Amino acid sequence: MVSVPGPWHPIPGGVTAPEGFLASGLTAGLKPSGKPDLCLLLAPVGAVCAGSFTTNRVRAACVDLCAERLAATGGRARAVLTNSGQANACTGERGRSDSLRATAALAERLGLPEEQVLICSTGVIGVPIPMPPLLAAMEPLMAGLSDEGGAAAATAILTTDLIDKQIALEASLGSRTVRIGGMAKGSGMIHPAMATMLGYLTCDAGVPAGVWQAMVQRAVDRSFNAITVDGDTSTNDTYLAFAAGEPLSPEHFEALEAGLTAVSQHLARAIARDGEGATCLIEVRVEGAVDEAGARAIARTVCGSSLVKTAIHGRDPNWGRILAAAGRAGVAFDPQAVALWLGEHQLMAAGQPLDFDRPAASAYMQARAAGAYLSDDTIAIRLRVGDGPGSGSAWGCDLSDQYVRINADYTT
Amino acid sequence: MVSVPGPWHPIPGGVTAPEGFLASGLTAGLKPSGKPDLCLLLAPVGAVCAGSFTTNRVRAACVDLCAERLAATGGRARAVLTNSGQANACTGERGRSDSLRATAALAERLGLPEEQVLICSTGVIGVPIPMPPLLAAMEPLMAGLSDEGGAAAATAILTTDLIDKQIALEASLGSRTVRIGGMAKGSGMIHPAMATMLGYLTCDAGVPAGVWQAMVQRAVDRSFNAITVDGDTSTNDTYLAFAAGEPLSPEHFEALEAGLTAVSQHLARAIARDGEGATCLIEVRVEGAVDEAGARAIARTVCGSSLVKTAIHGRDPNWGRILAAAGRAGVAFDPQAVALWLGEHQLMAAGQPLDFDRPAASAYMQARAAGAYLSDDTIAIRLRVGDGPGSGSAWGCDLSDQYVRINADYTT
Repeated sequence: MVSVPGPWHPIPGGVTAPEGFLASGLTAGLKPSGKPDLCLLLAPVGAVCAGSFTTNRVRAACVDLCAERLAATGGRARAVLTNSGQANACTGERGRSDSLRATAALAERLGLPEEQVLICSTGVIGVPIPMPPLLAAMEPLMAGLSDEGGAAAATAILTTDLIDKQIALEASLGSRTVRIGGMAKGSGMIHPAMATMLGYLTCDAGVPAGVWQAMVQRAVDRSFNAITVDGDTSTNDTYLAFAAGEPLSPEHFEALEAGLTAVSQHLARAIARDGEGATCLIEVRVEGAVDEAGARAIARTVCGSSLVKTAIHGRDPNWGRILAAAGRAGVAFDPQAVALWLGEHQLMAAGQPLDFDRPAASAYMQARAAGAYLSDDTIAIRLRVGDGPGSGSAWGCDLSDQYVRINADYTT
Repeated sequence: MVSVPGPWHPIPGGVTAPEGFLASGLTAGLKPSGKPDLCLLLAPVGAVCAGSFTTNRVRAACVDLCAERLAATGGRARAVLTNSGQANACTGERGRSDSLRATAALAERLGLPEEQVLICSTGVIGVPIPMPPLLAAMEPLMAGLSDEGGAAAATAILTTDLIDKQIALEASLGSRTVRIGGMAKGSGMIHPAMATMLGYLTCDAGVPAGVWQAMVQRAVDRSFNAITVDGDTSTNDTYLAFAAGEPLSPEHFEALEAGLTAVSQHLARAIARDGEGATCLIEVRVEGAVDEAGARAIARTVCGSSLVKTAIHGRDPNWGRILAAAGRAGVAFDPQAVALWLGEHQLMAAGQPLDFDRPAASAYMQARAAGAYLSDDTIAIRLRVGDGPGSGSAWGCDLSDQYVRINADYTT
């Protein structure tokens, strides 16, 4: 569990925990496996939605459509349809027209303008969505909408993830109660050529669209943009964050942002922990950098290094690989100022290795392997690179031979 | 064997094939394994030397010393001492003073100014060089200098490489014969925390220092800067290129550059092919980009993708992973214009998959695995991203479970 800041505390549920949000999920028959594959999330009247999308030049038609519609409406989206099994990327004109048909059919039934309906797809690249079963499932999907539908929705967006990923937080802000919910999928035993990450956040406080968009972007930079499983950016990555409800007093914006950052970080960590073949979560915290962006860049480079990831898989306190990775992050720092900790064990000071207790450091890493999901399985690396004010974190997972076998043996 | 351009043809030998260059290599007792570990390369009077060094912020004292001395003398270096076994990185003040002591001792014996003597170190990070055996080996090292010493030198610079890496080319340029020699080490079964790549090139034609430096930089961009084994940049990467002899007429500069690019590419490909756990060499050629730098950036991103590397390890013609990797290279192109070939098999046209002969494409990849070293073991990927004039190549190797075991099981 990510540490929960300030006034926030965890409550049961996910995206339907905030007031007014409805969701449903079912099996439409899109996946050969017969698992749940279609999900609908409906936001209350007046909702604003902030979107964050893959930076890949090759992106799916549904991603283009989401971005266009959020821009055209100033973030006034009300509904998102998500199908899992087919990414609908590299499917040409048909990909675009299928996305338009699906959202048009849903908009008509919901009585909404088409521009307020979004679609996200995840699954195999190059494969179109089977439209007849998708269209046939619209009625039961709408009939299933409920304020307890978050769990079914969180299941229906999965592809080959090992576990559901959802969270809800609650806080008293002034005289009112505010809730934030979230769900995500990604990175677990990824089908080759799968498009990877989807995340959804809901909040029952009203926030001006511009303020909300800026808050969400900062939260994304501190969560999803700070994780890495294998360095490959997918064609479909999407994060959609809805806020709807009585306007929140600006004095509580800072607390709200802390909550949505915590929810985003929980979901991002859950994705990293569920990385292909992973046996532990790696958390790298960099301190003393010139600024936060530089600290995060160093942290993410260390997290993404194949040599660091394999060393951690072998539970080897290999400070040399950590330092070499930090050095190639493209961020200036003085190597002679570096100090490094692994858990409580200090491995370096003033840029040189200390005579640390190697068996104890290895034992710390071994113990993390056996820990409970997202609690005691985190191997914490702390790197101080100077006296600057910038600090930041990144999360990843170890690189195992199982990762190679998963990705080498499977033929699309 | 890399294709040899224009007037050049291969000849036996390595760095001592060009006239006037001497080298020696021996076992000084620096490595616990008892393998050769010390090498000396001596360039003729009047040599100019161009150096290219790691961009890692954390770099060894010897790298700083090389860069400083080449800057101070305008590239007038005459000798390079190389020790293998200890990288002498992250060794603080002692690392610097040991490098100074070693080069001072050698300069005195050679009768050269200290500034004209360089030192390169490769091996375990954080471990200083054992100075007494190194200093004791100076006399026999000098006594062993010969114009046939290239092979002994190429062996003495290795750490855990599986094979020696050297090459020599010859051409008639106008009325004279010019030879280029090269040797390198790196990437083979790397010891955890090893500092990786060293390369040396010699040429018996005189070229003005500024012209030579520019030629070498372009060749490095098209060779060493275009390979990747695991994305980790070492603390000691160094390439030193010497030119010494009768001045070459400028009309032959273009031919000379083609030769030194071919030598550099051969050495770079040999390093990639000898990558940890590799079963094949991957060559990615990108065409139709806006410029050469963009094409190379896309090619290197594809070569470095863990998902592409594991797919190739499984001999899976996974076009989706190749395209997704190309898309995140940070280079603009139109996804709808993409065409993709694997060997002779076209997998995509106009941004969409073709109905290609999958068993035949897999069979092409399978056959590459069994090929001879650096000849038939190359899996060739060709990606056309538009109609632009830019093309460029990158080389890498597949990602195997053996890579993970090598890097996870070995404890420093």
